[in-house]
Amino acid sequence: MSSPEIPKSHPRYESLLTRHRIEAGVDRGITSKQGLIAQGRGEAFDYLLGEETIDSAEEAERVAAAHLLRADHPVLSVNGNVAALTPREIVELAEATGSDIEVNLFNRTEGRIERIVEHLREHGASDIKGKTADGRIPGLDHERAKVDADGIGAADVVLVPLEDGDRAEALASMGKTELVIDLNPMSRSAQSAAVPIVDNLIRAIPNMTEHARSLADADGDELDSIVDSFDPKTALSDAERRIREE
Amino acid sequence: MSSPEIPKSHPRYESLLTRHRIEAGVDRGITSKQGLIAQGRGEAFDYLLGEETIDSAEEAERVAAAHLLRADHPVLSVNGNVAALTPREIVELAEATGSDIEVNLFNRTEGRIERIVEHLREHGASDIKGKTADGRIPGLDHERAKVDADGIGAADVVLVPLEDGDRAEALASMGKTELVIDLNPMSRSAQSAAVPIVDNLIRAIPNMTEHARSLADADGDELDSIVDSFDPKTALSDAERRIREE
Repeated sequence: MSSPEIPKSHPRYESLLTRHRIEAGVDRGITSKQGLIAQGRGEAFDYLLGEETIDSAEEAERVAAAHLLRADHPVLSVNGNVAALTPREIVELAEATGSDIEVNLFNRTEGRIERIVEHLREHGASDIKGKTADGRIPGLDHERAKVDADGIGAADVVLVPLEDGDRAEALASMGKTELVIDLNPMSRSAQSAAVPIVDNLIRAIPNMTEHARSLADADGDELDSIVDSFDPKTALSDAERRIREE
Repeated sequence: MSSPEIPKSHPRYESLLTRHRIEAGVDRGITSKQGLIAQGRGEAFDYLLGEETIDSAEEAERVAAAHLLRADHPVLSVNGNVAALTPREIVELAEATGSDIEVNLFNRTEGRIERIVEHLREHGASDIKGKTADGRIPGLDHERAKVDADGIGAADVVLVPLEDGDRAEALASMGKTELVIDLNPMSRSAQSAAVPIVDNLIRAIPNMTEHARSLADADGDELDSIVDSFDPKTALSDAERRIREE
């Protein structure tokens, strides 16, 4: 999934790499049509953000890492776009934080679950959840509600990058601490998160891993104080201001 | 291509219809992967615009209609997204303004040209240009440069909805009067247009047709005065203000 044909010095490297990975995801049957449209929406918001990790997002990424580290049962939810864009990066984050990985799709088909699991395995993941689907998120219709009972079903902290609004709200209503990566700070997903991260996935996931590694030796009090210092409303309004300003 | 399953009273009717048409376009081999991503970018900007035709866009649509009516050789350039989203609407605009239709693709393949021509024929078009490709736009590489010599090549006024920035700039450099529909007022396409229309295609094309019908009996002086009154910079800064404001 690397792209030898795109030189790292290219001014549009990140954007071209993203495009390359998402299209390869379609060709492999990992990314859906809805996923491509969602990618475009993200691109537009990232363009308005200046295509950089703003300070409040960097802080949110550190807070999210602290949440994962102090959780009893942290789970990273992976959909088609996440698997296509950051397969190795999500495996590294799981390792750095002791999190489980669960493949969980808005448009669920067993074939697509299978292909995503295989894709993550090729990038170093083992013991990937999401195929059992023996748990349900209350308040969602049947297919949308499916989770693994011992995965997202049992999680106290869940990272849901690029999640649909209905599902993000339903997960938050279950009392789970929800960490959301979403480039639109006005989205319901971002609004319902305990920690909204308004940043490009391709920058956010490696940043979270770096923070988790720096915090590996932090004690419970230090993690608590990082988590307690965070205000989601301030982070969201900062991101919206950055998007709106010229 | 109509959608009997989406009731017109649905609060998200326009958005759902758009989504339905663009996905059907993919299934028919009309819309490309790049087209789906572009669709998502447009959705994000439309969301920030309030998903309505702002006054300055309505004015630009009237001015664009006047340009087409007074042109010697007006051409409507149609790509995969335009064909998927507004096939009948583009045929009606061509009829109302005496314009030619040319299928012209950023990622040109003869198969896709063929399918788009067929799709437009099913929606009432006849004599569609774009298959000859015997003309070239100077300053673009081979495949990107292709146009019909007696279509866009000979046009004095060209409507390029949803066009790539390089191509929009190259067409403007040829001295053609360029009418651009683009939801991002900061894009190079919008910036290089004589008439930038910052509006959703699905609203813009029928509006232009309505204006063209109202202006059908206008004389040359009236059309000239409508065209001369327009300032693209003012229209762009108004649209950007609307996108940035909360």
